[in-house]
Amino acid sequence: MLGLMQEQPLLISSLIEHAAETHADRQVVSRDAAGGIRSFGYRALASRARALAEALIALGVKPGDRVATLAWNDHRHMELYYAVSGIGAVIHTVNPRLFPQQIGFILNHAESCCLFFDPGFTALVTELAPGLTAISHFVEMADEAAVPLPDDPFVRQNYEHLLAGRTGAFAWPPLDDRAASGLCYTSGTTGDPKGVLYAHRSTVLHALSAGGPGGFNVTRDDVVLAVVPLFHVNAWGLPYVCALNGATLVLPGPRLDGASIYELMRSQSCTMAFGVPTVWMGLIDHVKNNPQLRPPDELKLRRVIIGGAAAPAALIDDLQDLLGCDVVLAWGMTELSPLGSIGRVPRKGELADEEARRRRLAKQGRAVFGVTMKIVDADGQALPRDGRAAGRLLVRGPWVTSGYFRHDAPLLDADGFFETGDIATIDPAGDLEITDRMKDVIKSGGEWISSIELEGVASSHPAVAEAAVIAMPHPKWQERPLLIARLREGRSASADDILAHMAPHIAKWWMPDDVVFVDDIPHTATGKIQKTKLRERFAGHQALQSGPN
Amino acid sequence: MLGLMQEQPLLISSLIEHAAETHADRQVVSRDAAGGIRSFGYRALASRARALAEALIALGVKPGDRVATLAWNDHRHMELYYAVSGIGAVIHTVNPRLFPQQIGFILNHAESCCLFFDPGFTALVTELAPGLTAISHFVEMADEAAVPLPDDPFVRQNYEHLLAGRTGAFAWPPLDDRAASGLCYTSGTTGDPKGVLYAHRSTVLHALSAGGPGGFNVTRDDVVLAVVPLFHVNAWGLPYVCALNGATLVLPGPRLDGASIYELMRSQSCTMAFGVPTVWMGLIDHVKNNPQLRPPDELKLRRVIIGGAAAPAALIDDLQDLLGCDVVLAWGMTELSPLGSIGRVPRKGELADEEARRRRLAKQGRAVFGVTMKIVDADGQALPRDGRAAGRLLVRGPWVTSGYFRHDAPLLDADGFFETGDIATIDPAGDLEITDRMKDVIKSGGEWISSIELEGVASSHPAVAEAAVIAMPHPKWQERPLLIARLREGRSASADDILAHMAPHIAKWWMPDDVVFVDDIPHTATGKIQKTKLRERFAGHQALQSGPN
Repeated sequence: MLGLMQEQPLLISSLIEHAAETHADRQVVSRDAAGGIRSFGYRALASRARALAEALIALGVKPGDRVATLAWNDHRHMELYYAVSGIGAVIHTVNPRLFPQQIGFILNHAESCCLFFDPGFTALVTELAPGLTAISHFVEMADEAAVPLPDDPFVRQNYEHLLAGRTGAFAWPPLDDRAASGLCYTSGTTGDPKGVLYAHRSTVLHALSAGGPGGFNVTRDDVVLAVVPLFHVNAWGLPYVCALNGATLVLPGPRLDGASIYELMRSQSCTMAFGVPTVWMGLIDHVKNNPQLRPPDELKLRRVIIGGAAAPAALIDDLQDLLGCDVVLAWGMTELSPLGSIGRVPRKGELADEEARRRRLAKQGRAVFGVTMKIVDADGQALPRDGRAAGRLLVRGPWVTSGYFRHDAPLLDADGFFETGDIATIDPAGDLEITDRMKDVIKSGGEWISSIELEGVASSHPAVAEAAVIAMPHPKWQERPLLIARLREGRSASADDILAHMAPHIAKWWMPDDVVFVDDIPHTATGKIQKTKLRERFAGHQALQSGPN
Repeated sequence: MLGLMQEQPLLISSLIEHAAETHADRQVVSRDAAGGIRSFGYRALASRARALAEALIALGVKPGDRVATLAWNDHRHMELYYAVSGIGAVIHTVNPRLFPQQIGFILNHAESCCLFFDPGFTALVTELAPGLTAISHFVEMADEAAVPLPDDPFVRQNYEHLLAGRTGAFAWPPLDDRAASGLCYTSGTTGDPKGVLYAHRSTVLHALSAGGPGGFNVTRDDVVLAVVPLFHVNAWGLPYVCALNGATLVLPGPRLDGASIYELMRSQSCTMAFGVPTVWMGLIDHVKNNPQLRPPDELKLRRVIIGGAAAPAALIDDLQDLLGCDVVLAWGMTELSPLGSIGRVPRKGELADEEARRRRLAKQGRAVFGVTMKIVDADGQALPRDGRAAGRLLVRGPWVTSGYFRHDAPLLDADGFFETGDIATIDPAGDLEITDRMKDVIKSGGEWISSIELEGVASSHPAVAEAAVIAMPHPKWQERPLLIARLREGRSASADDILAHMAPHIAKWWMPDDVVFVDDIPHTATGKIQKTKLRERFAGHQALQSGPN
């Protein structure tokens, strides 16, 4: 027997219309490349989004078509989010920090029909344009039309010209809420990028849970600084979360250095800020280098949310101590829209012993409502939630991918779970700890050794600037760990020094069989260590010792 | 083109399982009739709910079957919420304060197959049992089995006996999330009660939005006192909202007097409390009558949420001043699951002038995300959101009813909106103000006069204990207002006194044509003024004057 409730679809357009009707006194604040600030109330922004929707339809954009962006965080990018999805098309945000050939691959694979780009990416677009097979319209996101150059390989349209004369008196069409709404490619460390295709239902449900009390808890009283880019998994959903809850959203444009971020936080009275660890490192450096700053007096910041990568303990301490704000760690993936789990880090003195607090720094918090997690062993058998058993992490939920765009391979297990590729433990309280990537873990004698944990311990040696651990094949133990270290400039240390430093912190059988020193550790465009390159380079390496003593 | 996200259904069972996995350190605290307190962590409560689910299946309860309750707020009632809906059956909460013949009608109309009841309602169930046509199982919600009486008209089963020996190792079945999950009858002022049939999807979406930052904002740090009964529109969704967000939920049992509520708030360190105005009046009386109490020191209360009826200004002032807590007004209906709009009342001094604050006291706040509102005139034409135009209020959204249980009449307009039966204004900021019920508004000369506003102004005369305004037919003006007043004991006032008191506060043409004094104003079982009775009684009344001068 079905209930007798309205089966209203969950549409992205309802988020911006809700903001226009009930949060008209809240703003989207946008900083441009020159540092200029513009503010739009949600009612004005919704009107511009509707005008843009009309313009897109006039350009010939149809439901299901992909509309791509190469842009920083500004109000036009946010307008595109709502206009494109609102008419049933798919907003395809491309990461401009990828290598140009990857960007070209992604645009062609998605067959995006329009490309909206920041003026700062003109050279990149000029380079790519001849190889782009599907783009019919190139639109520059600028106040004024650029002067065309004689050798322009494409016709540049201007964003504001598209909007000119349109009233915004446009009614969003009804849609199936399972319709595709957004597309974001993952840049893995191996293989071609793969596209995750979001839907209206998944996006609205993610916004409700991620923005809710058990997630970011964004309220009408908040001023949210989104340093996380709009091209990076929908800026963790903030354009949706802020409209839903009526928070003012501050979009920083291209300038993300510590000084620029600090000044924007100060001038806009930001209460929450979202970004990856490197951004906060830059901010902390700026504060440390400018002792005249008085962050707790000058800022209204009450919470920093860190995601995208593990946050070093020293960074968390600095944010809590110097900025006087709470630190919240979030774990997610492009395939999870992105939020999977979240947890606030206790401040010093808040827990009985500092050691318990330190252990919490490594954890990724608890699953948000909607995401169901399980950990299983190599054979797929469920493992206990005891905080010790480490297994493959699988997740299920309405904002978890069911398959990649234009990939036929089935992605889910028999119970509908997605394999994250992570190795994790879950403790009895529900706190998740990612201990490794499945492809990076060292399988030694039937047990797993966490490369991430070894890298963390090795990096805590004062002479080590960066450390990477990879598996070496081993006749008896199957695999054994090899530590690759880059030393700080002007510092020296021997392999034995480093291993001796590590010994008290790890099980004896986890000890790397060897340490090699390198001048450079290779990274991907998004800053991850390229372990595939390291494995190639050290394929024939002969270890100092051979397996655990 | 559909997105590629998991289409996981939104199921009520996922709420309690989320709480069990991530909020095991939070509690459901239950006070029994004798004042005894029991606490269950969410993991323990989920286990009991699963055991009860097994027991229900063993009793023969099938998906779609209705399982009725006649019970106060306690842990067993909450377990029934999850167990019944979790197996695909329908939890049918019946208001024990209704007249017995209404209760009998409701149970027979719903054809509920089981009745779970508090021991305190044994006499009521004994009275009703011979007339109940569909109930196969009567289950007493008590620790120990009652001794059967020779003239018992039914076989009493015991709740704990049903659970005995069951492990709770039960897996909730997958369900269509549009499946019916709950049933609650409205007790209107006219006609037979009508049933609203909730679904899993509507319930989970309501919990996400109502519990979210734009709703009640219930967090893991909250201890929530649900004075609003579990038989009254799902206690405004609190059993779902608290599990979702990991708040401790305090269930007060049958004792709802001011002293009992105060003591429970104090002993359990409640941070939020939900209830109708009369409950808070009792609490304030208790505080005023016991000057030794020091509420701001003794309580942790930060917010009181008032719904179900308009809250008098003096009550709001007292809650803010004496208890030192925030006051939040919520508007809803059984047909809205129930939350439609919500707003915090500013404290004295928070707004520039007290008059602006007074105007806010009459408003019902802004629509929560998911509820779309429109106001229309008598012909269905949209009215502006200017805070002045009053029209019929219609609402749409995923937790709004689409039709009553076992009623064939179509309920929605062409755009899918439900007519609330209320007359309202909406101001430019989005704040709703209910000015009257459609059937109570006085239609005078093509314009509407608010009976609620006249009643409020008349009640502010110091001699008036209660006031009701009804329409009298009028040859020229169609209808004119008649004021019916009950005076305070030992006070006197003439009709002219009261009209003179009202004159400065209302438009001249709103002035009642007459005032009649009565010893008693009739009420329904749920405390609403029975205007139908008043209309019958004063059908032939001759007015003092005849229409506006």
